[in-house]
Amino acid sequence: MSTPQENAIQYATAHRPEFLARLVDLLAIPSISTDPEHHPDILRAAQWLADELKRLGATDVEILPTEGKPIVWGELAAATPGAPTVLVYGHYDVQPVDPLDLWESDPFLATERDRSLFARGASDMKGQIVATLAALESIRAASGARESDDRGGYPVNVRFLLEGEEEIGSPSLESSIDRYREKFTADLCLNPDTGMISPDHPTITYSLRGLAYFEVRLRGPAHDLHSGIYGGAVENPAHVLCELLAGLHDQEGRVTLPGFYDRVRELSREERTELARLPGGDQAYLEQTGAPALFGEAGYTAVERVGARPTLEINGLLSGFTGKGAKTVLPATAMAKISTRLVPDQDPEEIRRMLMEYFETNTPETVTCEVEVLALGPPLITERDNPGNRALAGALQAVWGVAPLFKREGGSVPVSIYLERALGMPSVLTGFGLPDDNLHAPNEKLDLPTWYRGIETLIHFFHNVS
Amino acid sequence: MSTPQENAIQYATAHRPEFLARLVDLLAIPSISTDPEHHPDILRAAQWLADELKRLGATDVEILPTEGKPIVWGELAAATPGAPTVLVYGHYDVQPVDPLDLWESDPFLATERDRSLFARGASDMKGQIVATLAALESIRAASGARESDDRGGYPVNVRFLLEGEEEIGSPSLESSIDRYREKFTADLCLNPDTGMISPDHPTITYSLRGLAYFEVRLRGPAHDLHSGIYGGAVENPAHVLCELLAGLHDQEGRVTLPGFYDRVRELSREERTELARLPGGDQAYLEQTGAPALFGEAGYTAVERVGARPTLEINGLLSGFTGKGAKTVLPATAMAKISTRLVPDQDPEEIRRMLMEYFETNTPETVTCEVEVLALGPPLITERDNPGNRALAGALQAVWGVAPLFKREGGSVPVSIYLERALGMPSVLTGFGLPDDNLHAPNEKLDLPTWYRGIETLIHFFHNVS
Repeated sequence: MSTPQENAIQYATAHRPEFLARLVDLLAIPSISTDPEHHPDILRAAQWLADELKRLGATDVEILPTEGKPIVWGELAAATPGAPTVLVYGHYDVQPVDPLDLWESDPFLATERDRSLFARGASDMKGQIVATLAALESIRAASGARESDDRGGYPVNVRFLLEGEEEIGSPSLESSIDRYREKFTADLCLNPDTGMISPDHPTITYSLRGLAYFEVRLRGPAHDLHSGIYGGAVENPAHVLCELLAGLHDQEGRVTLPGFYDRVRELSREERTELARLPGGDQAYLEQTGAPALFGEAGYTAVERVGARPTLEINGLLSGFTGKGAKTVLPATAMAKISTRLVPDQDPEEIRRMLMEYFETNTPETVTCEVEVLALGPPLITERDNPGNRALAGALQAVWGVAPLFKREGGSVPVSIYLERALGMPSVLTGFGLPDDNLHAPNEKLDLPTWYRGIETLIHFFHNVS
Repeated sequence: MSTPQENAIQYATAHRPEFLARLVDLLAIPSISTDPEHHPDILRAAQWLADELKRLGATDVEILPTEGKPIVWGELAAATPGAPTVLVYGHYDVQPVDPLDLWESDPFLATERDRSLFARGASDMKGQIVATLAALESIRAASGARESDDRGGYPVNVRFLLEGEEEIGSPSLESSIDRYREKFTADLCLNPDTGMISPDHPTITYSLRGLAYFEVRLRGPAHDLHSGIYGGAVENPAHVLCELLAGLHDQEGRVTLPGFYDRVRELSREERTELARLPGGDQAYLEQTGAPALFGEAGYTAVERVGARPTLEINGLLSGFTGKGAKTVLPATAMAKISTRLVPDQDPEEIRRMLMEYFETNTPETVTCEVEVLALGPPLITERDNPGNRALAGALQAVWGVAPLFKREGGSVPVSIYLERALGMPSVLTGFGLPDDNLHAPNEKLDLPTWYRGIETLIHFFHNVS
């Protein structure tokens, strides 16, 4: 006689085309959170998810208003009273798609090529949300629950927190968790927004970097000037910007802000040994990035630099004339977007103060400087051996036949720290995206065989955690 | 009995509305030379000028093909055989108009406000060309010549060299002057592409800066990367660009390229005294630019820095994400447009080699660097007391009632050095634009009372030089 897991997996295997169609449908909504023009698409994506939760037999579904984009909330009741509760986290917003001309197919018309599905959000993270919903649908179907049932035959209670502003740093998430804390209370959070190291290496993430993101704007002359008629008499704000930004690193790539590394938790010998066992390493980084050479803080491997060391990056530069040909302009303004990735125990607010002070102290009187905070999210580190991670490790082992790897992730998932801080809730961090999925870049993709395995893994997980 | 000059000036005064209408007509053609999409407009502007020369009784008019944009050429015969020949230089191309949203009226629909005419090219330099044509029309009308006459009653022979690529550094002008040297031969060149210091100070320019303009492109990773997943492992080309650009100046604003100042001709005590007599000075630069403070090479006034000292400016910067909000991208590329303004006796080719060597030597192996030359024009200095300048000084004195000022101009007019080099021809450099005309910037304008005086001045000039 087959187990409920086996029945659910059988259902999932038979219904792959329907799951894929549902993902394509969600991917067609250009829910770009950073662009106010796409706000209606944010609302459409939220409604799409609310409808899906109803279809799964949710006892209650709400689109919760926040100070920013709405949160989709819902609740699926366990078959057995007293079962534990899992909060499923996801974000339904996506990154912008420019430069559009580098996409090989329409970013919002998901296209299958080889074994991958190409679309903005396919991997980050609409694919991960739809995989979770597909796992729950399979569990419900295998339990024999009818569409009209209130209780869906689930082994655990499931709640949802699906936000719409992760790609802009989740500015109103912390206040929303406070405001709706009753609704989000659970034993643990499943967060499938991190990825795998390779298709053959299921991965659990136990540490995330924080993010502090800024826009720096310098103004010199009141308007663009002729570089012949005025060049030499006034300071060029683009020069000042380059000097200020160049002054943030030393020649070895270390950030030079005073105190920047003071709170960085050093890696233990044991953890470095474990991280060194992760496959890929420097060669993999070279291949994935296509960079001529690797570069970074001396004394650390690429895996360590990305996972356990903080960085400060320029994300964008704009000044003066950038079209074709020559325009002899002395620009009135110069703009940079810069962001730091933070590791435990750095504090984003403290980093913000350091950066503000740096620009205040070093901007000459020949220009004015304005720094706007666009995101502030702290870093996170979790216990590798907690109940959630154990349930997930078993699920991954069951599907892949190998023990999962534990890794530190270079990206930022502010929700996990907020949940820990507000509700004492641990997060289980995983996901079925791959390093070459082109997240935040043109031609984002999702590896479909890995995605199908992900659905099976989540079926196991919801049973294991019960 | 009135002199021919007086009659011509009377005609010019009576026909101001017609001259203005003609200028508005030419300004409506968006002849932006840097944008290939506007090439048809370049051809329209050339044809417009050729038609005007025919109307002035030109014995011969041609639109000369070149390696780039065509040159409008024509010839007006003097009433008296053996009269000297003046080559009138002009450029009918204009700068781009972005940022378009800062214009208060359509840049190609010339609009009169207060005493000014607002349009791209109004001052630089379609206004100057139309003023010259208006002066010649007035001379011809006052002489009693009929429309059908071959000889137009002119006191001198007049030839024209009206180019269409000055705003992109006149890339094919030198070869065209070689190719058509017979057509351009003259006793002197009238070049009204420089301006006045103020409406009350008629000005003759005796020195121009040269221009060497480059586009620098750095490439790091093969595509934009997620700054969380890869930040720390690869070099950010925007950082490298900022470091390379910051390294081109010291803290006092001096260019640090080795040898950059070696060939700079130092100002004599006498010339510095003369330049110090120019009105305006530092306070005028502050007002015109709206900069919080002036800045530049120590030991020189703003007038000297702009006229007699070389500079290196960033004209544009572009990298990564520059839209609204936060995108956590590690950019694959970073681009800068940079240009140097050169003074006698610097050599643009030598400066090009210095810059190329700087980027080759200092670009790290973590990125690749490509430098494209967009313009290379040498600086110029002329005798203040040559026949052309004397004729012009008399004309300016006659109209304004004061002796003109002699100044060094910070801008670049490559044609003057080409004519000097190829044909030994001196240039008379003047013009009726003002420092606050917003050249190369939004809301370019032309001061109309000064423009009308300019037409009168040119009537005197053509008589004086005969």
